[in-house]
Amino acid sequence: MTRTAPETRSPGAPADTDAIRVAVSTVIFTLRRLPGSDALQVVLPLVRRTRDPHEGQWALPGGWLDVTEGLDTAASRTLAETTGLAPSYLEQLYAFGAVDRSPTRVVSIVYWALLRADEITDATVENVQWFDAAALPALAFDHNEIVGYALWRLRNKVGYSRIAHGLLADEFTLADLREVYEAILARRLDPANFRRQVENSGTLIPTDRFRTGSHRPARLYRYNQDVELADRGPLDAGH
Amino acid sequence: MTRTAPETRSPGAPADTDAIRVAVSTVIFTLRRLPGSDALQVVLPLVRRTRDPHEGQWALPGGWLDVTEGLDTAASRTLAETTGLAPSYLEQLYAFGAVDRSPTRVVSIVYWALLRADEITDATVENVQWFDAAALPALAFDHNEIVGYALWRLRNKVGYSRIAHGLLADEFTLADLREVYEAILARRLDPANFRRQVENSGTLIPTDRFRTGSHRPARLYRYNQDVELADRGPLDAGH
Repeated sequence: MTRTAPETRSPGAPADTDAIRVAVSTVIFTLRRLPGSDALQVVLPLVRRTRDPHEGQWALPGGWLDVTEGLDTAASRTLAETTGLAPSYLEQLYAFGAVDRSPTRVVSIVYWALLRADEITDATVENVQWFDAAALPALAFDHNEIVGYALWRLRNKVGYSRIAHGLLADEFTLADLREVYEAILARRLDPANFRRQVENSGTLIPTDRFRTGSHRPARLYRYNQDVELADRGPLDAGH
Repeated sequence: MTRTAPETRSPGAPADTDAIRVAVSTVIFTLRRLPGSDALQVVLPLVRRTRDPHEGQWALPGGWLDVTEGLDTAASRTLAETTGLAPSYLEQLYAFGAVDRSPTRVVSIVYWALLRADEITDATVENVQWFDAAALPALAFDHNEIVGYALWRLRNKVGYSRIAHGLLADEFTLADLREVYEAILARRLDPANFRRQVENSGTLIPTDRFRTGSHRPARLYRYNQDVELADRGPLDAGH
């Protein structure tokens, strides 16, 4: 294709602008009980790189932004191409653009999503594997830093929003909800305090259904749907 | 400069990737009493474009990302070059990348900052003017949408963080603080309710100083400095 002709470039634009490329990557978190562990863990899918740079290392799913597609579309497309995953909603997390994060200059727009375990097909995809977010190997590029930032945002966000909803079935017990919080925050929570806080928050609606089984029947709750799970405000209008 | 040679480009990279350029823009909010109004308003600086596209229209301060600089650096540099403003801290807001937002394909990484009125030099800079955020003209590109998103984030954030601190002197009365909230939220708040909520929040520390003047002496408060105003978590380590 033809490059932008120099005379249409703003005088202030350094020629070097042309050497910067834009990529998208995605961090997909879900909760799983890993073999040999009783507790839920935050896990994410990584893709093994089959070419340089960083050939053989694990990296976040992603790819190049095409000139004909928006950022959200590129994130969904590259995620599907590399992992087969198709979350209904990806949220933009952050743009990473340090000069030395790649051998060539690449700005990566990073998206993230939370998925319930039942939303994930366990079809084996070549070169894709799920990893415990708390015990990652050395990843390609600055992807350890990116996952670290995404985890920090997840932990922050669980405190003031109903983000845990994205990891739960429509109806759940307070113990289910507490387990999600414990996995995200990576610490135990006192059951009685947790119940009190959640009940006082007004974000849950008790149903008249109970889960029965080997334990005492536990009431099922659902989230108050009046508030959006992932509210991007004006950007939801189809940006 | 030489383009990336095709043989070093990943096979998955579409050739069209090269036609995408990266820009940075900044939204700088402060509060001012506009002439003829008694109330504080959220205002921001805009720059009049002196060339196509959108020649003569107002736009956010910004410019092209240079291949040798990080995103944060580019945001600070282009803001200083266009407006003379140099906030101590810019926070990344969002990456805007719709295909049709500019005649050529441009992904804009948008930063924002809050400034106190006394941090702003009122030196006149050519082609720069401050505008009431609630009554903007039609701006260049998608910049109305960007300002709308930044305002939405500001309003959201004021609820769960001490972001109003960025707009206040070190010591302030509860009336000062309420006025900041009222300007950001664009609505009146009940003084007694506001006082109760703020006092219960534990985020303010009363001093033993009072502001005196034509009114009843009002106690001065300061924010509890144990918590950072703008906490980016792991990214604060110098990304």
